[in-house]
Amino acid sequence: MATIFPSRRVRRTPFSAGVEAAGMSVCTVYNRMILPSVFASQEEDYHHLKAHVQVWDVSCERQIAVQGPDARRLLDMISPRDLDKMAVDQCYYMPAIDRDGGMLNDPVLVKLADDHYWISVADSDYIQYVLGVADTLALDVRVWEPDVSPLGVQGPKSDALMARVFGEEVRDIRFFRYKRLAFEDTSFVVARSGYSRQGGFEIYVEGSDYGMPLWDALMRAGEDLEVRAGCPSTMERVEGGLLSYGNDMTRDNTPYECGLGKFVNSPRDYIGKAGLAARRDPIQQIRPVEIAGEIPPITAPWPLLADGKTVGQVTTATWSPDFKTNVSIAMVARSHWDAGTKLEVDTPDGLRAATVHAKFWK
Amino acid sequence: MATIFPSRRVRRTPFSAGVEAAGMSVCTVYNRMILPSVFASQEEDYHHLKAHVQVWDVSCERQIAVQGPDARRLLDMISPRDLDKMAVDQCYYMPAIDRDGGMLNDPVLVKLADDHYWISVADSDYIQYVLGVADTLALDVRVWEPDVSPLGVQGPKSDALMARVFGEEVRDIRFFRYKRLAFEDTSFVVARSGYSRQGGFEIYVEGSDYGMPLWDALMRAGEDLEVRAGCPSTMERVEGGLLSYGNDMTRDNTPYECGLGKFVNSPRDYIGKAGLAARRDPIQQIRPVEIAGEIPPITAPWPLLADGKTVGQVTTATWSPDFKTNVSIAMVARSHWDAGTKLEVDTPDGLRAATVHAKFWK
Repeated sequence: MATIFPSRRVRRTPFSAGVEAAGMSVCTVYNRMILPSVFASQEEDYHHLKAHVQVWDVSCERQIAVQGPDARRLLDMISPRDLDKMAVDQCYYMPAIDRDGGMLNDPVLVKLADDHYWISVADSDYIQYVLGVADTLALDVRVWEPDVSPLGVQGPKSDALMARVFGEEVRDIRFFRYKRLAFEDTSFVVARSGYSRQGGFEIYVEGSDYGMPLWDALMRAGEDLEVRAGCPSTMERVEGGLLSYGNDMTRDNTPYECGLGKFVNSPRDYIGKAGLAARRDPIQQIRPVEIAGEIPPITAPWPLLADGKTVGQVTTATWSPDFKTNVSIAMVARSHWDAGTKLEVDTPDGLRAATVHAKFWK
Repeated sequence: MATIFPSRRVRRTPFSAGVEAAGMSVCTVYNRMILPSVFASQEEDYHHLKAHVQVWDVSCERQIAVQGPDARRLLDMISPRDLDKMAVDQCYYMPAIDRDGGMLNDPVLVKLADDHYWISVADSDYIQYVLGVADTLALDVRVWEPDVSPLGVQGPKSDALMARVFGEEVRDIRFFRYKRLAFEDTSFVVARSGYSRQGGFEIYVEGSDYGMPLWDALMRAGEDLEVRAGCPSTMERVEGGLLSYGNDMTRDNTPYECGLGKFVNSPRDYIGKAGLAARRDPIQQIRPVEIAGEIPPITAPWPLLADGKTVGQVTTATWSPDFKTNVSIAMVARSHWDAGTKLEVDTPDGLRAATVHAKFWK
């Protein structure tokens, strides 16, 4: 596979120096930023994540800052989720949809104040949709990408490491809540969240110049905890059923199809409300699917077949070292989504036997 | 530099098989698609482009299809350019801006019918802005990304090659005009356009399955013309002053700053009209800047200094084999943008002498 051409357009991050020194060997581009994919090897990175603690450069989770008198009005127009009870220390998963209920992104909303939010986005320029709505209505709100780069601390020893750098109070942060904690002469939003099932935090590093000092502080403090540079693990996330926008869902899918229907509960008249209501009863939905045999890397959806007829598609698939089988995320038609259903997957290397599971492996 | 992790999210193209067989060695990711950057070497690719003809996989120039009774109404709301005289065989450069006149993309508009357009985009999800406007106003229009992947044919022998595959009438296509020409059992929009100064065409390949047959047909037909797989050349485009969205301009810049003011002439009340009017007299503008000495690859803007004070930034810079100097594109403050002005560039390898030019090298 080819290497990446250097340019301003594919952005480096405040932590790139640390990531490169740590030996990033494979990466991807996410929101036009470098996101590490592998350091030692996929399998070694995975085992280490499950046993110790890793520091992840997830700067590519960019923030859309929304601030001003009309901030809440704008969010009420785009959020299918009821925001009435959201507290100022809270993070909310918020489906991002178009007028037909098709997913435009897969963000987490962070409430900083009643008139100030961050929309922490997956891989698409959802900022342009937000701007399109705000500009059309000439709302009194500013929408921009601030200099905020999340750094993930993930793994079973995350609390231990974070307490050494940010103090014992990190242990009291509840899931999808945050505290503003001091570092050097500033403070960061520190949330208990992250793209793994191993527990941990995301530090919203405000000000690029603090990036490497924080990176170094975490690495120094965690030496005896075996801290390492890491990154989201496809193996671990598929075992745990963590979806990826652009892989497992696109604008072709509704939140209902992605099992995110519980976040559709806003009483307001938001864009897409009627569209979603019409698609409330999904004809396909995401399912864990086990695949037998050897499989190649997946770079385009693989058709799922029943008696030779397409009944869905596998969107992410990988070997699972702990479960010793191939695990995958698939979009499966209602007729074939029951647990135990036997199907076939049409991979570039040939047909493979597949079984629909009730639950992800975790 | 690291290689790219395989996934559905970073998309392959209808021509990927051809590109890989031709030995792509360096690539980038553009609109979440692989875009080749180097085949043999930057310099060899560049000399070949200027002497012969190349076939470019520019699938990453995605189309935003806009179709329906309100298509023109939607375009009139977002286009700073007057569309009244646009003909059905025409391509228009159209600045894409937000309410303040900040650039959101750098697209070419292709008119297919009075109620059907393609917006051929640079590297950002401008589709989300267009959707935001259309959804807010509940316009009677469909906005989607069709299965259309442009294939570039660039270089001095482009007319000769294209005539062999599409017939002699390609020679009559005027600049930024198109004809619909037959291929196998279908037809494609074939425009005289492209991201080089060497002349050529862009074939809007509709239907991924036609990708490799067309690729192979061009390669076969051009053997004695020394046709090769190629890609946009940073060396050639900087010599010629072709700008790159995300590199040379971002949302921080107006069309005026980018020398695109002549495309701001719509009589309609479009979004951003007042914002642009307020910024009509730019305090900085894009200039060609020559840089002395050896320079490293550029991955973030380099400050331009006058007596140690920042007066602009270099956004793309490269060695030019033909002009035997470093050529660059820079955003320069009005106080220092006159041709002949001597400046310094603060590169990661140290200060370099720089001179503002009146014109790009071509």
